[in-house]
Amino acid sequence: MRKQIINSPKGFQVAALHCGLKSENQNDLAVIYSESPCQVAAAFTSNKVKAAPVLYDQQIVRAGKAVRAVVVNAGNANACTGSEGMQHTRKMAEATSHLFAGSADEVLVLSTGVIGVPLPMELILAGIKAMGELTPQTWLDAAQAIMTTDTHPKIASIQSHSGYTITGIAKGSGMISPKMATMLSVICTDAALTSEMLSKVQEIWNQTFNRIVVDGDMSTNDTVILLANGVSEVEVGPDGDFYQTFSQICTELARAIVKDGEGATKLVTVSVKGANSQIDAEKIARAIATSPLCKTAFYGADPNWGRIICAAGYADADFSPEKASLKLKKDDQKIILFESGQAELYNEAEAIAVMQSEEWEISLDLRQGRSSYWIWTCDLSHEYITINGHYRT
Amino acid sequence: MRKQIINSPKGFQVAALHCGLKSENQNDLAVIYSESPCQVAAAFTSNKVKAAPVLYDQQIVRAGKAVRAVVVNAGNANACTGSEGMQHTRKMAEATSHLFAGSADEVLVLSTGVIGVPLPMELILAGIKAMGELTPQTWLDAAQAIMTTDTHPKIASIQSHSGYTITGIAKGSGMISPKMATMLSVICTDAALTSEMLSKVQEIWNQTFNRIVVDGDMSTNDTVILLANGVSEVEVGPDGDFYQTFSQICTELARAIVKDGEGATKLVTVSVKGANSQIDAEKIARAIATSPLCKTAFYGADPNWGRIICAAGYADADFSPEKASLKLKKDDQKIILFESGQAELYNEAEAIAVMQSEEWEISLDLRQGRSSYWIWTCDLSHEYITINGHYRT
Repeated sequence: MRKQIINSPKGFQVAALHCGLKSENQNDLAVIYSESPCQVAAAFTSNKVKAAPVLYDQQIVRAGKAVRAVVVNAGNANACTGSEGMQHTRKMAEATSHLFAGSADEVLVLSTGVIGVPLPMELILAGIKAMGELTPQTWLDAAQAIMTTDTHPKIASIQSHSGYTITGIAKGSGMISPKMATMLSVICTDAALTSEMLSKVQEIWNQTFNRIVVDGDMSTNDTVILLANGVSEVEVGPDGDFYQTFSQICTELARAIVKDGEGATKLVTVSVKGANSQIDAEKIARAIATSPLCKTAFYGADPNWGRIICAAGYADADFSPEKASLKLKKDDQKIILFESGQAELYNEAEAIAVMQSEEWEISLDLRQGRSSYWIWTCDLSHEYITINGHYRT
Repeated sequence: MRKQIINSPKGFQVAALHCGLKSENQNDLAVIYSESPCQVAAAFTSNKVKAAPVLYDQQIVRAGKAVRAVVVNAGNANACTGSEGMQHTRKMAEATSHLFAGSADEVLVLSTGVIGVPLPMELILAGIKAMGELTPQTWLDAAQAIMTTDTHPKIASIQSHSGYTITGIAKGSGMISPKMATMLSVICTDAALTSEMLSKVQEIWNQTFNRIVVDGDMSTNDTVILLANGVSEVEVGPDGDFYQTFSQICTELARAIVKDGEGATKLVTVSVKGANSQIDAEKIARAIATSPLCKTAFYGADPNWGRIICAAGYADADFSPEKASLKLKKDDQKIILFESGQAELYNEAEAIAVMQSEEWEISLDLRQGRSSYWIWTCDLSHEYITINGHYRT
């Protein structure tokens, strides 16, 4: 991510500390709260198995209530924890609401970590209580507090010339192939959103957080939340610069997740165009982005394009290999690997050099129709196996 | 695979040699031929991108012609090789037909190896010619000749008390998640098949070769062929012992492929029952069997059942986690990990011990309906990345 200044949107406060969920002395609990009530947009995992905080937050967001705070813990997903898990979530919200003398249904709850282990509530409640005695922390502390296997915090912040600020944090790394939402992300702004802009938020998330793949596993806890408290008194709609600025924040956070994918060494954009439908283009892009053979070839910087065409072929989409063309792209450089059903002569060393760089693109033109789709993915390395083969990560 | 005697079905001959496609001095070309014409059943990959020999064989099988021989090469898939690839396939068939003074359309062709590289036809044709001067080889030579990343040959043979023999060879290892067929396998018998039995063959393949997953990548070359020459003069139908015997051969070959999956250290049966439909049960079994997070947990012998429930949850099938039950099974041992939506207390050391053994089962009961499905998968290890990250495997 680019070096940047992190500004806090007006009226928001952040607290973070170590309450004991992570084994080392790292922050594992964060509260973000707003001095005044916020408009909310949120998207959640479409996994049939939803963690307790997801079920809890969905109730609040669907009821259209204003929200004041988000409490987040890492180290424990509070998923598959039954009715006790729901009670624990509610207790987290209640305890957090005492920090600003509000009510539990003004608090959203996010959890991430291992599935199926009861939350150690004494640690959590003591931690939330201690937040009240903290001076406001930096956003970076909160971004660190929600990390699990992430190797660095993910944060993005833009202060607009129009007078508002957007700052967001995210965590990702593994179990990343969101469908309706993604991993954990909380984005706060002091802008006042028009209802039109609020309804556009999901569209932006479909273009950013919903376009990333690390390992094809969709989490039980995926959640992204936008809180807008309007304290800047700048009203924003989809026609102003907010749409662009918010897209940029989400893009930075989504890309940061893929770049820090478990064991990842490079970010690859998979672009499919010329499809008969966007659904077909998406199926093919996702098949390539998820294929272990493509991802290990990305890791080994091996221009073994047969694996890519092969993945396109089993994606259950309509196309003729005889028409298709496959390119490697980086900046202005284009290398055609495959053309009209067969190998194209290309400079092997050049292709390897492109694939050895940190970021590049695979571009598949099906020459069938006018639809396209792209997605960001990473490579699959030994380190992914080390991280996930270890007992109870 | 059990230690066994390899008998050749009557009237079949086998030849195998090194023609130069594999870099080392290993067999890479095999011919299996029958003294008399054979009844044929075959199934092919449903990948949209089909290798030239798949397209060629499909024409012959669909025309219902009798077949005399199969020629197989390893080291080159002859896939994505355009019209030249089709010509090469036909030339391989022609050259092979000269060995027994037959015609090209009596020969099926199988290829496996790297995609998109033209077949070195001089090597292939010289190799096929040299086959004519060989004395009949053992089936083991042929099984070795079709290996790519396989670490050992896959062969199964049963001589029935009814007076016929079935012997089959297979190769697998990577790019294994067949849908309509699978990798390469040639199974020969001297039984005479009734038309009723011939139509049952696909059913058996659906229960064996179509129930294996190594990495979720479906090949461009998957093919399984049954040749029956009737030389034993034993006529067999689905009601006799042939159905069982043939199932056993296919089971042994299919399991051998998973056990020798690239980098695999264990074979895991994923069983799903109590689903509303078989399609739902299959979706969930395949999601678990393909999930990198489940497969790395299998590798690390980590009873992290949350990953399994999570994969079930994103499989796009209908079920309620609150009803589901998840067990680890090995022989008579059963360990309940998850029950009615939450963790079950279990002996961690016992669960780890089960998962450290070479073969065990995951059993998920959804308690929704009466449908079930099972599939064989393997773990995902560092070695998979080493094998596939290397340049041009």
